[in-house]
Formats: sequence, C-alpha cells, structure tokens
Amino acid sequence: MTGTAAPFAADDYRARMERAARSAAEAGFAGLLVAPGPDMVWLTGYSPTAVTERLTLLVLAPGQDPVLVVPTLEAPDAAKAAGASALTLRDWTDGKDPYAATAALLGANGRFGISDNAWAMHLLGLQKALPGTSYASLTEALPMLRAVKDTAELELLAAAGAAADATFEEIRKVPFGGRRESEVAADLADLLRRFGHSQVDFTIVASGPNGANPHHEVGDRVIERGDMVVLDFGGLKDGYGSDTYRTVHVGEPTDEER
Amino acid sequence: MTGTAAPFAADDYRARMERAARSAAEAGFAGLLVAPGPDMVWLTGYSPTAVTERLTLLVLAPGQDPVLVVPTLEAPDAAKAAGASALTLRDWTDGKDPYAATAALLGANGRFGISDNAWAMHLLGLQKALPGTSYASLTEALPMLRAVKDTAELELLAAAGAAADATFEEIRKVPFGGRRESEVAADLADLLRRFGHSQVDFTIVASGPNGANPHHEVGDRVIERGDMVVLDFGGLKDGYGSDTYRTVHVGEPTDEER
Repeated sequence: MTGTAAPFAADDYRARMERAARSAAEAGFAGLLVAPGPDMVWLTGYSPTAVTERLTLLVLAPGQDPVLVVPTLEAPDAAKAAGASALTLRDWTDGKDPYAATAALLGANGRFGISDNAWAMHLLGLQKALPGTSYASLTEALPMLRAVKDTAELELLAAAGAAADATFEEIRKVPFGGRRESEVAADLADLLRRFGHSQVDFTIVASGPNGANPHHEVGDRVIERGDMVVLDFGGLKDGYGSDTYRTVHVGEPTDEER
Repeated sequence: MTGTAAPFAADDYRARMERAARSAAEAGFAGLLVAPGPDMVWLTGYSPTAVTERLTLLVLAPGQDPVLVVPTLEAPDAAKAAGASALTLRDWTDGKDPYAATAALLGANGRFGISDNAWAMHLLGLQKALPGTSYASLTEALPMLRAVKDTAELELLAAAGAAADATFEEIRKVPFGGRRESEVAADLADLLRRFGHSQVDFTIVASGPNGANPHHEVGDRVIERGDMVVLDFGGLKDGYGSDTYRTVHVGEPTDEER
C-alpha cells in the first residue's frame, strides 16, 4: 500500500537509486532487480495495490536511468508514486512477454542482485530469457544497502517504536482474565492502528502453555488468572516498522514467576 | 493465517498431496516444491503466521511421503495444521543451512515444479545447492492442479460470493456523496468482515475520473453527487476468495450515463 510509504521527496528516491546502482557496481554486479516490497518502497515510494503474478520490477544499472517495468493496468498508480519523476516507466500489456521486455534492459551476460522476495516464477522467466545471466539475492549481494539509516528514517523508526510503546501501556489496562487470546489480539491491533500504524503485521497473544511457542498462532484459549501471557506485536507506521515483545502476568505472580 | 483455512480433514489433504505428486510424475517432474501461500494451504491446511526469509517448503515427490521443511520456531504451529498427520515435519534451526537439508530430499538431477510465489532467494539457494536440478513454476508445470474444484470447494466459493453480494447490497445503503473514497473503502472492508470474510485483500473505490484507472489506489478524493463510482472488492472467507466489480451512480444518472 502506498499509504504506508514515508513522506520522502523525489530527490530522496533519486539519491537512493543512484546510491544503490553505485553500490551494485562496487560489489561487481551489472545491476539490481527490485520487486514490490520494502526495497521498492524505499527506492521509489511505489507499492502496487496487490502483489500478483504480473511482473513489476525496478531495474537499476550503473550508468543507466532507473526503469520501472510495470503492468499497463497499474501504470497510472506507479506514475503517481513519490519517486516516479526519478525513473522511467516501461509498461507491458497482458498477453505480452514481460521477460523479453525486461531482458532488453539487462544485457546478456551480467550478474544481477534480485530482491529476496521476488517471485520464483519471475526469476525463472528471466533465467530462461537470458541464459547467460546469473543472480544473487539482494541480501547476499548488498547486505548493507538499507542497514544504515539517515536522520529522517531514524525519526520515523523512533515514532513507530513510540507508538508500539503506547500500545503496550494501553493493553495493560484491558482485561485479560476470562477473555480469549483472539480478543486481546484484536485489542492490540486496534491500539496499534489508533496510535498511527497503517498496517498491523502480527499480534501474537500466547497465554499459559502457549507462551513456549515463539510463533504461536493466536487461538481461542481463554486466558486464566495466574497465567503469564507473551505479547509479540508489530506493524508499519509511515512505512517504518515496530516489533515489540513483552510478557505480562494476569494477577499476582508467584515468587518463582518473578 | 491458519484462521483462513477451510475446514477440511487430514484425509482430504492426504488425497490432495497424493494427487499432486501423481500429476507431477505424469507431467515428467521429479517433484513439487510448495511455498507458503494458497497452494500450501490447499495441500496441507498450513499457513505460517508470517511469510519470512526463513525457508518453509513442502516437498512432494512420487513414491515418497510428503515432507514439510519448516523453521524450528514454527514447527509447533505446523504440527497443529489440519493436514499435519499426512506429512513428515523436518525442522531446521536458525544458523543451519536449510537448502542442504532440502537438497537431501530432492536428488541431484531432477526437474521440479516450484510455487510461483516462492521467494527468489530460496530458489537461488536450491539452484546453488543442486546445480544439476532445473525448475518450472507450478503454473507452468501443472496449470490444472487446483483448477477443478470438488463439491466442498464449490460450496465454499459460493459462500464467499454470497458474502460479497450481501456486502454490495449493504454498501448501496451507505452515503457516498460528500465522503472520501477512503471512507467508503473502510465501510466495504467492515462489511466484508461482517459477512464472514477473515481477510480483506482489496477495496477499490474509484470515483469520477479515478474510475478509468483499473487498479486505482483509494485516495482522499471527496465523492460528488453525479459521480459514477467503481467498486472492486474481495478477500477470503473460509479460505476461498471473492472478487466483485460493480459501478454505482451517486444521484440520478444522465441519459448518456445510462
């Protein structure tokens, strides 16, 4: 959702794309192929309404202007992205081969970094169109690309963390005992949204025996007085993520539990 | 979310996995590699809390028992999936190489079908671990695998469609004129949930000039009397999807608009 994008300007995106292409060249890559997801949002401000089987791919190559390959029916939205003026849109129509169109941008024998979460279907399409190319996941190719944040990003991260802290202070006030895990999880989601999260990614509420399961799927267990309850919740606020883990006790803890 | 899974039994999942492996063999594949998503839900009833960089992969090969490769920290949830008793869990711990573990299940030179939406990172890991293997997307390998629905699935699809129809009847009663597209979109999401959708995937509200953009990102435009408004909404109910497209008119349409 573009609604989750942080309010950066076209020049910010232009500078990021230039830096990414330069970093790719320094690491020996002919270019970077970026699929919809956090990397694309960071580089362009664009996120499709839904990630589908239709190829959407940002091509960054040293010395070339950035190109966003995009399905024609999503081109109007891509053109509105905050970073759109810093790139060229190349749209393709249903029924045409998007891999041939992308291959023309890549050259026949390069090694490319590709988003970790790009679809296997698309990687296979590119490998078939360009048998001489090779690929590495972006995390392997450029592990530090987004790791060092600038001041504006640090502020947005701090704001997301503060919203999660406020959520925790409020959730402590809602009743736990006698209610289902799923009900407390819904409260957590509401609070995250109330404190400015545009997207809630997980609201784990693991009570009693479920607390031993790190990625517990919230269920219908009724929380009892005396339970310890693990809360693990997070999402996106203005495009930056929170991830908070707290254990609370329902009623007075025993000496051992302390 | 396992909450979106349809209420099938272990035998249903066992039969589907057997059929998938048999179809793969008939199509000349050494096996199928299924990533989290609709195919995995259909085959096993399992869906991780979140899809992450940690490899979760169902391996189906003719004449072998199904194996689900799963991160150790998610193994407890996987073990609770409705189809878990029809497969073997093979868990791997952070820091270990999941591709080596998976490679041992595949053999060195086969051709495999892999989920369209499997992460490129994982496909690259398998290609590196097993340079003699080759891959095709599941859609290319077995386009008909899930296309023919059984009776129970048809009923669930019909129920999802009926919930979407009910949503449309109700949304016609809410005020459009003078409100933002985003407000009507929130109403649509609420109604889909009220009529049983566990997941809302898209609620496009494209008013006036925005109606010409097929994947319009809902915005702050205030809907005016006289506007035509395109509604395109859908999501999952009991694991099966609805997708409804309607155009409504705010106030009396002109002769040309009729």
